[in-house]
Amino acid sequence: MALPSDYSGQACSLARSLEVVGERWTLLIVRDAFFGVRRFGDFASHLKIPRAVLAERLKALTTEGVLLRVRADGHRDEYELSEKGQSLWPVIRSLTVWGDNNYAPDGPRRIFRHATDDGELDPTGRCSCCGEIVEASETDIVPGPGVAPPRSEDDLVTVALAERHRLLRPLRSSDNATDHHLDL
Amino acid sequence: MALPSDYSGQACSLARSLEVVGERWTLLIVRDAFFGVRRFGDFASHLKIPRAVLAERLKALTTEGVLLRVRADGHRDEYELSEKGQSLWPVIRSLTVWGDNNYAPDGPRRIFRHATDDGELDPTGRCSCCGEIVEASETDIVPGPGVAPPRSEDDLVTVALAERHRLLRPLRSSDNATDHHLDL
Repeated sequence: MALPSDYSGQACSLARSLEVVGERWTLLIVRDAFFGVRRFGDFASHLKIPRAVLAERLKALTTEGVLLRVRADGHRDEYELSEKGQSLWPVIRSLTVWGDNNYAPDGPRRIFRHATDDGELDPTGRCSCCGEIVEASETDIVPGPGVAPPRSEDDLVTVALAERHRLLRPLRSSDNATDHHLDL
Repeated sequence: MALPSDYSGQACSLARSLEVVGERWTLLIVRDAFFGVRRFGDFASHLKIPRAVLAERLKALTTEGVLLRVRADGHRDEYELSEKGQSLWPVIRSLTVWGDNNYAPDGPRRIFRHATDDGELDPTGRCSCCGEIVEASETDIVPGPGVAPPRSEDDLVTVALAERHRLLRPLRSSDNATDHHLDL
């Protein structure tokens, strides 16, 4: 998002954020990274965006340090959220909640639960069970009543997300470095 | 933000939100509305965006029910956040905090405080004094260490925000309907 370079300094932290994550598709890519998507091809097939646009967005997010480009299996590049990227979770969560509240007549498509005690997160991100504000790494996403029924043409990411899944954990078990090392 | 109309239903609440508020400038307009900007000319001079773009964005936000167009002083149209628009506060706040944390080397430009007990809000939006998640209507914005020094060419909104201000309250006292009626 190009903004005037002389945009008044007094209140431009939101503007600066939007310069980094306000481009079309960018927050959807970041959301997918929270879901555990790591491979270029999986982002492309799940988001159904042109590969050139995806490549440009991934490059920009890597340059800004939101995503880290890591080597997997000794040959394939993958993308994972940095600490800076993970701190975007409240943004992703609150925009998703707002969409669910206003544009999901059948109920939320995804329900967020605290992994440690299964408490559902309230709209502020607080666990209804223990009262804590829950980090992404301790959040499970569970299909909600508004989720679409499975279709034969669903991509791998959509299929994987039809089951409960811990945020930030790779959706493909082979992408999990720990599992991989255990396999050796 | 145009997105494929067949975008997979399973997780598109974020996508739907971005269709409504993901356009360039839109979240900055919404932020200004939280700051208490209500007049077309004040949005225009503070954001320094082309008036045609501003008009288009205000119209879209009004159509979606994020902003309400209200008649002020019997002749002038003003814009105020609806309940739906006010529920975007966690989005605005968390994007601002993210920008402050990553792109404000001199410290935050705006500090959010709980109006009732003056507690500073932590990054999750919780009052450091009473522990509550604070609504926009109970939040004061206070200039922080990263705020730019005043300049002679500053617009009215920038000047007004150089002092502590309650979110959602009109920045111009004459825009406050209650005050206005008291004046009669």
